[in-house]
Amino acid sequence: MKRLSLLALAVGLPAFAADPVPYPKGYRAWTHVKSMVIDSGHPLYEAFGGIHHIYGNAKALEGYRSGRFADGAVIVFDLLEAQRADNAVMEGPRKVVGVMHRNAKAYAATGGWGFEAFRGDSTTERTVGDKAKTACFDCHAAQKDRSYVFSSYRN
Amino acid sequence: MKRLSLLALAVGLPAFAADPVPYPKGYRAWTHVKSMVIDSGHPLYEAFGGIHHIYGNAKALEGYRSGRFADGAVIVFDLLEAQRADNAVMEGPRKVVGVMHRNAKAYAATGGWGFEAFRGDSTTERTVGDKAKTACFDCHAAQKDRSYVFSSYRN
Repeated sequence: MKRLSLLALAVGLPAFAADPVPYPKGYRAWTHVKSMVIDSGHPLYEAFGGIHHIYGNAKALEGYRSGRFADGAVIVFDLLEAQRADNAVMEGPRKVVGVMHRNAKAYAATGGWGFEAFRGDSTTERTVGDKAKTACFDCHAAQKDRSYVFSSYRN
Repeated sequence: MKRLSLLALAVGLPAFAADPVPYPKGYRAWTHVKSMVIDSGHPLYEAFGGIHHIYGNAKALEGYRSGRFADGAVIVFDLLEAQRADNAVMEGPRKVVGVMHRNAKAYAATGGWGFEAFRGDSTTERTVGDKAKTACFDCHAAQKDRSYVFSSYRN
């Protein structure tokens, strides 16, 4: 961080720029926490319409259990198109991979969580970037008593 | 198996009785393969209506990749009620945990797979038992070229 701050000063970036949230490599093999389908007409349809699955790494699972998420806990919101046909909903192409990455110090400005989203199957195309506060945290802030996490582990 | 067969002879059970399929302990931490919602009006609604998630253990994942499932591969079909409200589908109580357990010898009569289903959250209340052929395999038989497995791993 010290080197990053010096670099920021040197090149004129804001010194408070948070570390970029890493792509959650391998998350499909993490534990599946819960799922939900959001249909047309739901208030969050524009942003989150489709079928989503939540995954957590081992530290995130411990956080769901204890209510306290340690640095390194990562929660993934994996949003796929919901394709309706013949009285069924099938999973379609991936729309976005949303990430909450716990690091109390690095992301202190957004409750200790770094927020990012990667478009479709891309591991590099970021859609949140420096807008984490307005695009993510302002809504998650309502969950302060739950460590800013909306989901619960469903047995 | 030899002792079981002798026991079967001794107590008059059919000697071909297959080993009971074990409850897939810990499957919620296995890899999530894919999901689907089956609604009212779907031909399989009576049996499988709701939201289901497929999970596989490490050997099952290798089987999805290679097309050949080694003994010990286990696939779980985890069926929950699909609760519709406010233009969303939420997960409800568990209806049944279906299991395919690979053991080419023990379950030779049903394609090398043992089939079982456990009611709700019970780890002991079996709903298939000795009806695996008619309740499960007769339909899975159509997937012979795919090792009798319907699902594919969805990235």
